[in-house]
Amino acid sequence: MTDTVDCPKGYRYAGVVSGLRSEPNRRDIALVVSDRPASVAGVFTQNRVCAAPVQVCRARVPGAHARGVVICSGNANACTGEQGLRDARAMTQTVATVLGVVPEAILVASTGIIGRPLPMPVVIPGIHQALSALTPESKGLDDAAAAILTTDTCTKLASTRFSWDGVDYTVTGFAKGAAMIGPNMATMLAFVLTDAPVAPTEWQEMLAQAVDASFNCISVEGHMSTNDTVLAFANGAAGGRELQGAGLDLLAHALDEICTRLARKIIQDAEGATHILTLHVEGLRTVADARKIAKTVAESALVKTALFGADPNWGRIVSAAGYAGVDFAERDVSLWLAGTLLYDRGVPVPFDAAAVSNHIKSHREIDARLVFTLGTARTTFWTSDLTYDYVRLNADYTT
Amino acid sequence: MTDTVDCPKGYRYAGVVSGLRSEPNRRDIALVVSDRPASVAGVFTQNRVCAAPVQVCRARVPGAHARGVVICSGNANACTGEQGLRDARAMTQTVATVLGVVPEAILVASTGIIGRPLPMPVVIPGIHQALSALTPESKGLDDAAAAILTTDTCTKLASTRFSWDGVDYTVTGFAKGAAMIGPNMATMLAFVLTDAPVAPTEWQEMLAQAVDASFNCISVEGHMSTNDTVLAFANGAAGGRELQGAGLDLLAHALDEICTRLARKIIQDAEGATHILTLHVEGLRTVADARKIAKTVAESALVKTALFGADPNWGRIVSAAGYAGVDFAERDVSLWLAGTLLYDRGVPVPFDAAAVSNHIKSHREIDARLVFTLGTARTTFWTSDLTYDYVRLNADYTT
Repeated sequence: MTDTVDCPKGYRYAGVVSGLRSEPNRRDIALVVSDRPASVAGVFTQNRVCAAPVQVCRARVPGAHARGVVICSGNANACTGEQGLRDARAMTQTVATVLGVVPEAILVASTGIIGRPLPMPVVIPGIHQALSALTPESKGLDDAAAAILTTDTCTKLASTRFSWDGVDYTVTGFAKGAAMIGPNMATMLAFVLTDAPVAPTEWQEMLAQAVDASFNCISVEGHMSTNDTVLAFANGAAGGRELQGAGLDLLAHALDEICTRLARKIIQDAEGATHILTLHVEGLRTVADARKIAKTVAESALVKTALFGADPNWGRIVSAAGYAGVDFAERDVSLWLAGTLLYDRGVPVPFDAAAVSNHIKSHREIDARLVFTLGTARTTFWTSDLTYDYVRLNADYTT
Repeated sequence: MTDTVDCPKGYRYAGVVSGLRSEPNRRDIALVVSDRPASVAGVFTQNRVCAAPVQVCRARVPGAHARGVVICSGNANACTGEQGLRDARAMTQTVATVLGVVPEAILVASTGIIGRPLPMPVVIPGIHQALSALTPESKGLDDAAAAILTTDTCTKLASTRFSWDGVDYTVTGFAKGAAMIGPNMATMLAFVLTDAPVAPTEWQEMLAQAVDASFNCISVEGHMSTNDTVLAFANGAAGGRELQGAGLDLLAHALDEICTRLARKIIQDAEGATHILTLHVEGLRTVADARKIAKTVAESALVKTALFGADPNWGRIVSAAGYAGVDFAERDVSLWLAGTLLYDRGVPVPFDAAAVSNHIKSHREIDARLVFTLGTARTTFWTSDLTYDYVRLNADYTT
């Protein structure tokens, strides 16, 4: 299941088999190179324990231009101490030397098992192989999107276009994973590329906002990874003058769209999921309050097992909202599940439980609306159910 | 599996079958009465959505003396609006009228399904039946302990004694549940009774401290209940003057012991558990920091599935510590699992993974130690693993 996407101008891509993964013929090194310096923006995990490549990117991204990113899957290069930092820098040095740029122009990401040194005698030849395979064709992008996967069952790509001031621009992204969903594999990674011209500072602001409403609004089990990384490149290769005013709005809108589509693809592929819950939380004083409530409900194991069991046990949803740390009274809240009003401003509503259960049983996508009477702020959040397969995939003895 | 416990002086107990539960002959109404006014202390859920009996107790407990508590299981009386408050008060009124005391002298607790009105035509006759069955014998206490259970597999009782100023005192408690562990049943409840004489204010301080280090240090899935209630009564029926100095210390120590033993019984009975993890978090700046880290690790679905799978995947433990909101660097932390050092001040230690896995496989009780270099504060926390049975029990369609 691969989407066909448009390739923005001025980028080349590769995804190759280095042998880093135990599975034969599994792509594990991805490389994206911009033919010209690109404004770069990055958003990273908030975990105090963060992987070496995250530390390297954090030092290089702010306000900078970059020429590319190299990614390996199968090993997170996290909890690997000073050696890990040296290895992450060596990955970028290898690319930079061949391209004839400074190492600081190349970024790096990793995903996989935590706490094992990178096998550099495998990784470095793999990077050289990727450098030789670089191509501007969509085949290269597909290979790169495949090479960053871990327990994902499909590649995740999305693409959109907009025009401003007579020029057509493309925004394309690819992603993997969700939180720490894998048996031993960590991380969500996403990379967004555009050929629009935009300054690094504005690009960073746009990315931070887009991530907040997309990748920060999905949760599989709430375990924050050591490796979460979203990097966005804007190289201006499609031409035109630097975006301003409505041009910036169009780019921001396109970036929001790509991040949201990728985030939804991640949650759709959540490990072991049989249902995807779209949770609308409305009527709060602030968006931050709405997100706190949404995240708390979305990460409740009791909400997620009830969803798996097609049990319209709405008390679990309301009670999870109650411990999100947002001040409200019961009379301030109403709940709809699968289109049925179950709780009306603090009072339970008699309903046909069997009908709601049957609806859940026969639909993979379920909606819930928690509506408060405290303000106008709202958010949408996505989560998956907690199933036998989730437990099986994450309990498998893998060391 | 019932423990034999000592009954403190001056209390009578009952646990009867009212028919509130669907299972035949299942005890569902518990009653504890003190023959004289007892200093009463209470600690309740922090959930904004809190059950009617919690609201009633919160208004009655502070600084007060009370004569007893009536408890029903099978229905939480939560999310039930004004009717729920009226029903909770009516439960206490029924007891108070028969005892000839003011309704404010009687407390109330409930546990069970959320969002359904209490069937008062069943509950009120049940309370009268309990009033007729009151006895100071341990049989009554066992019946009361049985009547508060929901999905628990056994009653949970603990008892201890101490002497001060020539008088022997008894402290006895009983409890049920852990967080929201049940398919539809909510709540942990605990009731502690002593015949020692102590003022309400000191008793409340003691209880708050004891709960913090016991019931607040266990987690099954971290879903905060609407009904969590710990009530403690001290009626002074054993005689002697009001406790002071060393006498207060002895009582506080006994209360700590009872709360910790009951908390451990709750986690031992966690739904579907095959392993119990005792997590020691040491070397932090404050106990609050240690608890934040312990709770975050204990509630990670990835840590809990790895424990189920006997997988010494220590990166999940260290990375969970990293998102607890406590500032530290990787070089500040070391990790022992089942007695083996796996991570030494930020550097992974080579270890025999198969041996550690075999140890986990062959032991129900597993220890982990996260040791920081930031201070001297520490905590101990208990959690269970996330298993197929947990998912099955909580996904069962029950409406």
